[in-house]
Amino acid sequence: MYVAVDAMGTDNHPVADVAGAILAAREFKLGIILVGDETRIRQELSKSADAKSLDIRIVHTEETITMNDKPSQVGKGKPQSSMHIGMNLVKSGEAVGFVTAGNTGAAHAIAMLYTLKRIENVKRPALSVIFPIYDRPVTIIDAGANADSKPEWLAQFALMGSIYANKVLDIAQPRVGLLSNGEEEGKGNQLILQAKTLIQQLPVNYIGNIEPKDIMDGKVDVIVGDGFIGNILIKTFEATSRYLASLIRSEIVANPLSAVGGLLVKPAMARVQRRMDPAEIGGAPLLGVDGVVIISHGSSDANAIKNAIRQAAKAAEGNLIATIRDGLKQDVLAPLDEIKST
Amino acid sequence: MYVAVDAMGTDNHPVADVAGAILAAREFKLGIILVGDETRIRQELSKSADAKSLDIRIVHTEETITMNDKPSQVGKGKPQSSMHIGMNLVKSGEAVGFVTAGNTGAAHAIAMLYTLKRIENVKRPALSVIFPIYDRPVTIIDAGANADSKPEWLAQFALMGSIYANKVLDIAQPRVGLLSNGEEEGKGNQLILQAKTLIQQLPVNYIGNIEPKDIMDGKVDVIVGDGFIGNILIKTFEATSRYLASLIRSEIVANPLSAVGGLLVKPAMARVQRRMDPAEIGGAPLLGVDGVVIISHGSSDANAIKNAIRQAAKAAEGNLIATIRDGLKQDVLAPLDEIKST
Repeated sequence: MYVAVDAMGTDNHPVADVAGAILAAREFKLGIILVGDETRIRQELSKSADAKSLDIRIVHTEETITMNDKPSQVGKGKPQSSMHIGMNLVKSGEAVGFVTAGNTGAAHAIAMLYTLKRIENVKRPALSVIFPIYDRPVTIIDAGANADSKPEWLAQFALMGSIYANKVLDIAQPRVGLLSNGEEEGKGNQLILQAKTLIQQLPVNYIGNIEPKDIMDGKVDVIVGDGFIGNILIKTFEATSRYLASLIRSEIVANPLSAVGGLLVKPAMARVQRRMDPAEIGGAPLLGVDGVVIISHGSSDANAIKNAIRQAAKAAEGNLIATIRDGLKQDVLAPLDEIKST
Repeated sequence: MYVAVDAMGTDNHPVADVAGAILAAREFKLGIILVGDETRIRQELSKSADAKSLDIRIVHTEETITMNDKPSQVGKGKPQSSMHIGMNLVKSGEAVGFVTAGNTGAAHAIAMLYTLKRIENVKRPALSVIFPIYDRPVTIIDAGANADSKPEWLAQFALMGSIYANKVLDIAQPRVGLLSNGEEEGKGNQLILQAKTLIQQLPVNYIGNIEPKDIMDGKVDVIVGDGFIGNILIKTFEATSRYLASLIRSEIVANPLSAVGGLLVKPAMARVQRRMDPAEIGGAPLLGVDGVVIISHGSSDANAIKNAIRQAAKAAEGNLIATIRDGLKQDVLAPLDEIKST
């Protein structure tokens, strides 16, 4: 079982990417195919004493996608990129999944239009980010792939997110909620109100509108929204955490006594930081494309890449793609078409 | 100068409402008109030794709006509510502004359709919540009045928010940004991308797209978005702060040494909490209605109500309404119509 890893993905590529691949190969006894500039990959591999004993192969590519590349252009413009080649390894069956920490928009476009394509009946693939809330994984879908979405897409996101939470995150009956500006039944914008009628027709454990506080209170497993609101939600969570941590630091050092206390609580604060750390999750699956694709933060370190690789392997072992294909069969989705045509 | 205060607004009305009014009358030497159930108001006033010496009047009302009332129904359905009467005191000139901690949707509907009505040329009034970020006020408009908005409304929100930040928050050239899923020029959903072209035509200090981290980094004074995204942004900020505080507490008490440190940093933590406290701001102005209306949280305490009353007085002293009327004159808005018609 091989997982293909984009060696040219992170901001610090190929250093973190290769180091993460080594960790994963060693710890999970997985086969890895590193995709990217062979010379630079070999250089990184040579830094690790046991790399030769691990099951790591290299597929050389000439082109690299950068963060400044436009998603609409690289699909056609850089057909030999590590993303194209890596995804095609999944398509051909040589790898069970692909992990990249590169340009999210580019990965979305290349997967959907040029390599893996969509699973049958899927309207739009969606990025699903996993949040650790009190150490429980909470899935947000869509986390940024589709800034403008239709109600029907959101209904499909609910279905795909629910399948993912069940198959990969081991949650028995994932509670699915629509992100809204109030818990009450009538709250929401038009998109949310229309999506609600559709989701209620689908085989998911739909619990209604949820607000940000419900996420933190552990009331929901899968949060559904368009890619714009999902992205703002995640970024506000991250920015607020950093802001609050900085306020706390500045107030603690402002006084000698609390500065002493600050030293004593330092390990506790470090534990909090670790519990909030997205690296422990590793990456966001791009759900709805016909193959396992996990997208990591550009700032990922080796540990984050390692965990993303584990996620890819777990998705493959859990038959995620086949389950999504089954879950989005025409008869399941039929009620949505009926509503739309009335 | 009298400020009208809804005595039936807070979850704990009329206790916090009346207590806040007393604090404001005492501290700011303001006249207050308490609007609501006279018997219950007198009972609260009698608890304060100096209430008789303060300039506080009462206007009795028979009807009270609850949090469960539907905004679309109370406008016509409860014409003698404390919101109707309080806003009409502003309309007749008896009060310079109205403060309520009641149902936001109801206040929006009653102000826009039944009492004060809109300022000339205003498409939709918007709620503008003020965030204290490193003790600097940051305005978010719309914070929840219009879940579905049009690009043109957002352009007007930018203008009104900028005028408010200048007149009431004393910011010389407020930096106005559009809340988006990326700083880059092309990022955003259709609403944001279309609003951008319009805002660029208006006399505001427009700085482009902003992300949640820019808010915390102090890069923006006025954040513009529709009421759905604005509401989620604020609620995510609040929920994340509470979540992080709870994680920190649980990690600190988990170990005896850090528990001691926890005692030493307690005053610093309390200062952080105070710096994040929305009560220090007090309320959210409903901009665009033809009269000063400040809406507070249902959970407001006396201090929050006091600060909301100060905000109302400050808006009146700064001629906020006249400035918004001037700022949204036909010639200012004309370029928007030109873009729309092309």
